Amino acid sequence: MATLGIIEYADAPPEVKAVYDDIMTTRQTDYINNFWKVLAHDPVTLRRTWESVKQIMAPGALDSVTKEMVYLAVSTSNQCGYCIASHTAAARKAGMSDAQFAELMAVVGMANETNRLSAGYQVEIDERFRT
Amino acid sequence: MATLGIIEYADAPPEVKAVYDDIMTTRQTDYINNFWKVLAHDPVTLRRTWESVKQIMAPGALDSVTKEMVYLAVSTSNQCGYCIASHTAAARKAGMSDAQFAELMAVVGMANETNRLSAGYQVEIDERFRT
Amino acid sequence: MATLGIIEYADAPPEVKAVYDDIMTTRQTDYINNFWKVLAHDPVTLRRTWESVKQIMAPGALDSVTKEMVYLAVSTSNQCGYCIASHTAAARKAGMSDAQFAELMAVVGMANETNRLSAGYQVEIDERFRT
Amino acid sequence: MATLGIIEYADAPPEVKAVYDDIMTTRQTDYINNFWKVLAHDPVTLRRTWESVKQIMAPGALDSVTKEMVYLAVSTSNQCGYCIASHTAAARKAGMSDAQFAELMAVVGMANETNRLSAGYQVEIDERFRT
Amino acid sequence: MATLGIIEYADAPPEVKAVYDDIMTTRQTDYINNFWKVLAHDPVTLRRTWESVKQIMAPGALDSVTKEMVYLAVSTSNQCGYCIASHTAAARKAGMSDAQFAELMAVVGMANETNRLSAGYQVEIDERFRT
Amino acid sequence: MATLGIIEYADAPPEVKAVYDDIMTTRQTDYINNFWKVLAHDPVTLRRTWESVKQIMAPGALDSVTKEMVYLAVSTSNQCGYCIASHTAAARKAGMSDAQFAELMAVVGMANETNRLSAGYQVEIDERFRT
Repeated sequence: MATLGIIEYADAPPEVKAVYDDIMTTRQTDYINNFWKVLAHDPVTLRRTWESVKQIMAPGALDSVTKEMVYLAVSTSNQCGYCIASHTAAARKAGMSDAQFAELMAVVGMANETNRLSAGYQVEIDERFRT
Repeated sequence: MATLGIIEYADAPPEVKAVYDDIMTTRQTDYINNFWKVLAHDPVTLRRTWESVKQIMAPGALDSVTKEMVYLAVSTSNQCGYCIASHTAAARKAGMSDAQFAELMAVVGMANETNRLSAGYQVEIDERFRT
Repeated sequence: MATLGIIEYADAPPEVKAVYDDIMTTRQTDYINNFWKVLAHDPVTLRRTWESVKQIMAPGALDSVTKEMVYLAVSTSNQCGYCIASHTAAARKAGMSDAQFAELMAVVGMANETNRLSAGYQVEIDERFRT
Repeated sequence: MATLGIIEYADAPPEVKAVYDDIMTTRQTDYINNFWKVLAHDPVTLRRTWESVKQIMAPGALDSVTKEMVYLAVSTSNQCGYCIASHTAAARKAGMSDAQFAELMAVVGMANETNRLSAGYQVEIDERFRT
Repeated sequence: MATLGIIEYADAPPEVKAVYDDIMTTRQTDYINNFWKVLAHDPVTLRRTWESVKQIMAPGALDSVTKEMVYLAVSTSNQCGYCIASHTAAARKAGMSDAQFAELMAVVGMANETNRLSAGYQVEIDERFRT
Repeated sequence: MATLGIIEYADAPPEVKAVYDDIMTTRQTDYINNFWKVLAHDPVTLRRTWESVKQIMAPGALDSVTKEMVYLAVSTSNQCGYCIASHTAAARKAGMSDAQFAELMAVVGMANETNRLSAGYQVEIDERFRT
């Protein structure tokens, strides 16, 4: 079970309900996932984190599905079980196909491999890559 | 200096030159970066790694710039200095703008933050995310 | 199940029992957690690890609850399930409140975010931070 | 050099200058470190990150020096060169002594060791640690 | 459940069956583990990954059990649950004894500890280690 | 420069000199590397760390060169610059050939790749791997 348990909508104080409402409106869903129900124990962190996620994940120079795939790529690289599960769902909802998922994983795997090869061989940064 | 040093084109054995040639042809450049010149000490790994990178990074369900940005995202998350430098260059060459770079970094940072929040609060995976 | 299984007190050889006894005395408990019962398969590592933990976690320039919170912070950052569970318990026993836990998580999350922002932007160390 | 370079106060647009001013006022210093001067290329991320850091690092249930030490512990565990350098300076400014630094490092090192021992031995979480 | 589920031999297309057959022949077993059954959703990645693993893990300058132990050491350090479980089995099959496993874990733990001590203390690389 | 600077033999207090002497005797060298000269600021951690390293790295069920290669593999996977440099030197001194180094790096790279593939695809642990 989560360290502090989860807080359901019905039991939430007003400042938490306000965030839950905004999540549901922004995401056009009536579902609040466990991550937010757990952060609700710390309403200040809940609001700050949600506002940050809302700002960062809104379409801009990158579209939504690309952002969700990057989120999933990082979560995979960090091997965060909860985040892989939740952001696989989010990326699919944003339009990621199974073929895109498979290519995404291939890139993540390869990057992790060459990251270590370059570190282990102590490769020096090429002069032209020094901005 | 790199552990085993680097091998320049002129000094490379034929099986290494063949890979160097393919890199330059595929990437339409006359530049071989240090990563490959270092792997050249192990021609089998050089060829396998290059063939893998060439296959994985070719446009498919995901386009080239998206793949390069994912590569950069993972390298950033892993804090691999060489890979950040070289894949920033590669992503830019593939078309990444400064605005896209900035949004990419914001997503990478946020994912790393929420990955730890979900782990530290021991959030349980929602039933609906269990595929 | 643990790779080598666990060794209960009753089944333990004398050199393991001696460590178990010291753990219970030092921690003023009659409970030995699974971590130690697993390491018991390697009595040398069991003793060395316990002696190190005992030395490091004793109050000194930092008090016990601060040390336990740092331990939890690192375990969270590393996303180690067992360590998060056991050190949340240990930190609470040492006096960590729910409010302190929540602030601790917020710092851990933020540090992980800015660690990647500074790496990804390739920020150079300020002259004044070079000791 | 940083990917996008740094933006000095004199060259900064008004929304960046406003953040710089708030950093200097809050921290009671006339120095802006490179991290912020780099993020200034993305004023939205600059403001959001600064507001988050300001909120999270303010004294609350945990005091400032404890928060800075946790920040340093995480940065050390992640092996982020820039963050280690800058947060060592910040922790010292907040009051961390050399003796506290040394004990902090000992805890960080130990946590990283036992995190892997528990993972590698596949230790199961004790029933009593399941909240 | 795995994101895309698993593909059993009977349901596999010919190019997947060909890889399954080669795995069973090479490993002298009639068992295909879940990792491959999951990658089967992406036959190109399945083949590339298997060919790479087969090439890398074949005895060469390092023997099979040493390679499997290194694989387990890395998986432990990365805290990858699936990989620890599967490569513990593989290393044992290749001849790793319980005593070797215990020493392996001790080295992995120690390396993770000193990796952070050297980072946190900002130790400079000795001149003589600069190749 | 290292956070607290380094302590040379001539300037060291007796309890530090005793550790330095033991390092030089055990390793049959007259060279103390920076890692130890930095830890010397905390003589308790210096002694504990050295005693642990000495115990763990002594030949046992695994020989010295295998242990050094595992240490290098973990340091590479963690991308710890100092540790890669110092343990490459140590592994070579213990007998690692360039061919062994190259194969070691190939295994480390591959393990990092498949660690992420198994995490990202959310592969379930095979029943037979559950010890």
